[in-house]
Amino acid sequence: MTSKEEQQLWGQRGPSALDTLGLSLQGGNLFESLVIKCKAAVLWEVNKPFSIEEVEVAPPKEHEVRIKIMATGICRSDDHVITGALVEPFPIILGHEAAGVVESVGQGVTSVKPGDKVVPLFVPQCGECKNCLSIFLDYLQPQFDLTLSKTDYKQQISHAIISGHVSNSLGKAVHHFLGTSTFTEYTVVHESAVAKIDSAAPLEKVCLIGCGFSTGYGAALQTAKVEPGSTCAVFGLGGVGLSVIMGCKVAGAARIIAVDINSNKFAKAKELGATDCINPKDFDKPIHEVLTEMTGGGVDYSFEVIGRTDTMTAAFACCHYNYGVSVIVGVPPAAQNITFDPMLLFTGRSWKGSVFGGWKGKDAVPKLVDDYMKKKFVLDPLITHTLPWTKINEGFDLLRTGKR
Amino acid sequence: MTSKEEQQLWGQRGPSALDTLGLSLQGGNLFESLVIKCKAAVLWEVNKPFSIEEVEVAPPKEHEVRIKIMATGICRSDDHVITGALVEPFPIILGHEAAGVVESVGQGVTSVKPGDKVVPLFVPQCGECKNCLSIFLDYLQPQFDLTLSKTDYKQQISHAIISGHVSNSLGKAVHHFLGTSTFTEYTVVHESAVAKIDSAAPLEKVCLIGCGFSTGYGAALQTAKVEPGSTCAVFGLGGVGLSVIMGCKVAGAARIIAVDINSNKFAKAKELGATDCINPKDFDKPIHEVLTEMTGGGVDYSFEVIGRTDTMTAAFACCHYNYGVSVIVGVPPAAQNITFDPMLLFTGRSWKGSVFGGWKGKDAVPKLVDDYMKKKFVLDPLITHTLPWTKINEGFDLLRTGKR
Repeated sequence: MTSKEEQQLWGQRGPSALDTLGLSLQGGNLFESLVIKCKAAVLWEVNKPFSIEEVEVAPPKEHEVRIKIMATGICRSDDHVITGALVEPFPIILGHEAAGVVESVGQGVTSVKPGDKVVPLFVPQCGECKNCLSIFLDYLQPQFDLTLSKTDYKQQISHAIISGHVSNSLGKAVHHFLGTSTFTEYTVVHESAVAKIDSAAPLEKVCLIGCGFSTGYGAALQTAKVEPGSTCAVFGLGGVGLSVIMGCKVAGAARIIAVDINSNKFAKAKELGATDCINPKDFDKPIHEVLTEMTGGGVDYSFEVIGRTDTMTAAFACCHYNYGVSVIVGVPPAAQNITFDPMLLFTGRSWKGSVFGGWKGKDAVPKLVDDYMKKKFVLDPLITHTLPWTKINEGFDLLRTGKR
Repeated sequence: MTSKEEQQLWGQRGPSALDTLGLSLQGGNLFESLVIKCKAAVLWEVNKPFSIEEVEVAPPKEHEVRIKIMATGICRSDDHVITGALVEPFPIILGHEAAGVVESVGQGVTSVKPGDKVVPLFVPQCGECKNCLSIFLDYLQPQFDLTLSKTDYKQQISHAIISGHVSNSLGKAVHHFLGTSTFTEYTVVHESAVAKIDSAAPLEKVCLIGCGFSTGYGAALQTAKVEPGSTCAVFGLGGVGLSVIMGCKVAGAARIIAVDINSNKFAKAKELGATDCINPKDFDKPIHEVLTEMTGGGVDYSFEVIGRTDTMTAAFACCHYNYGVSVIVGVPPAAQNITFDPMLLFTGRSWKGSVFGGWKGKDAVPKLVDDYMKKKFVLDPLITHTLPWTKINEGFDLLRTGKR
């Protein structure tokens, strides 16, 4: 979901008119100590609708940045919290795929200033820790461990995140989500969790670079390192799966097989690069056998972009026994294990995971935005609906029904 | 085990004296149509000793090579067949880590000639199939699927293997093993399954390049691609595990942690490059937790070189959640599954398998032999005992007790 209301407001007033964005402050560092009262979508418990209510947003502390969110996407990972598949504390403000404008900054912040267009990063990049400095470029992965969100990630990922405060009007603290919390008019993030982008970038489009697009595109280009001439299979044709297809195509894959149980998604998959589309419901045999037969022994690369253990196993099994690489892109469901025969690995397959496409966000997101501005890839086909953000519950209904 | 008896014989007579090797033929292509009668170690059923008995070795057919085996190693994978962990048909002649001299060649063989020193390859390289021509150098793996040995690999790996015949004196066909069958005085292999090596190479040493050494060394250099300055953990300190350590050291690893429940193996591990040696029996907590704590979050690379599902899981869990790479080198036991939380993969770990160290044998084995001749690595520390090959049952007893 991108916020048309916000987008229009933005279009009318331009990047420097922070004082007119409907709030009782005039922007910039002068007023950085003020608490902002604004609207946010608060989730109070599992399987309930969001409550649009007034919250207080604390001013940014040292090395923190307060951002006016101009557009935000809805991601399946947000929905996992709503359904309880991903366990988080309540009440919480979800959202992690967004773009906005810096409203004010805390002491010591040097990489962004008020008025800058930015994308919040749910995978921060401090530039100093073992992860950020890793020499293992081939295997580089972002440094935020989603599994830790179940426990106390504040302590375990010391550099990373979350000291911005969002509290509701009743005075009760509201929890952050992934260090971003973008389903709100204003949020506070750590400086390491924000990337400055091109001032000409359309925020209602490039918000997708904050998660969905980059996650899929990078899974193909960064994590799998798809080779020209190769054969790929993509399980799941949501926005991330479509972005995997775009990544495979850019990498020069000769054959891209799209797999989904919803055949309505095939037209867009083909538009973006899929050469074959198959629906597991159309076959009597397991889909990994279908793919192995279609490709004379298995695909070179497979991607699971759904978040189910059965499709993770199928994607793994359908890649070539000798050199196939399978990448898990979908967030695994909590407390569900996979059981498999290790001989499937031993003979030469590789099994990998990919968070945020393996990109280092602070470095990569500005470049991805530049590439978008240069038309190296498209984002429009990933946007199915544009709603005012206050219609967020309707947006999640659309996500769950998979309507196009 | 290397065959001292054969080795001495070899030393006395030189490479061209095939006519004096104790058999009733005079060597070379002139007599290629003759059946050779010689001794072999035949395994008739699970958990029984080998029977040293006379067998008939058919002449090499088109694109086949008959080899006089001069030295052979004993590998845990051979033992897996004896114990039934790896299911093969009986009677069978095991053995796949050897070196010898070409006795005769079938029609169309161009890459070797009688008198050439050679190493048989249990992972053949035809140079023509999809596997051999694979462009995926990063993920290149050998083309022989051990899992297929449970079914009909002759059909499935059409180019690969096994038309040499070894039949016993009773006239009953004896099965080949991995296309090599080296526990015999003579064997027949496909041309794609033999590598010509330096004529000065000591066969009683370089036979180890036919499996154990190359498997471990390549797992570090080819499959994991260990980076300078990295931290590695090696589970299991048999000959292959020690070869992994040598590979990690050559790659420039800063820290190599050797793990074994037999502390008697630690001295040799340190001699070959291990910086730390730990025995899981010395700790109250799971060994993957010990390693994670020792390394401030997990190792960069881990290697399972035992062939047990519990150590495969431990090796996977001890590598860094963000960029750790775990490689399965030990042959997984038949019909045993692994159960794991896919979140361990999703966050950025990679899990790989390595057969024959990921080398393409016909190309790589001659180079590895050259590197050995140039003293780029040692083999002597991997040889614990040298026995006449007729004492093969004693050799397997030594393997099982892990005596040094």
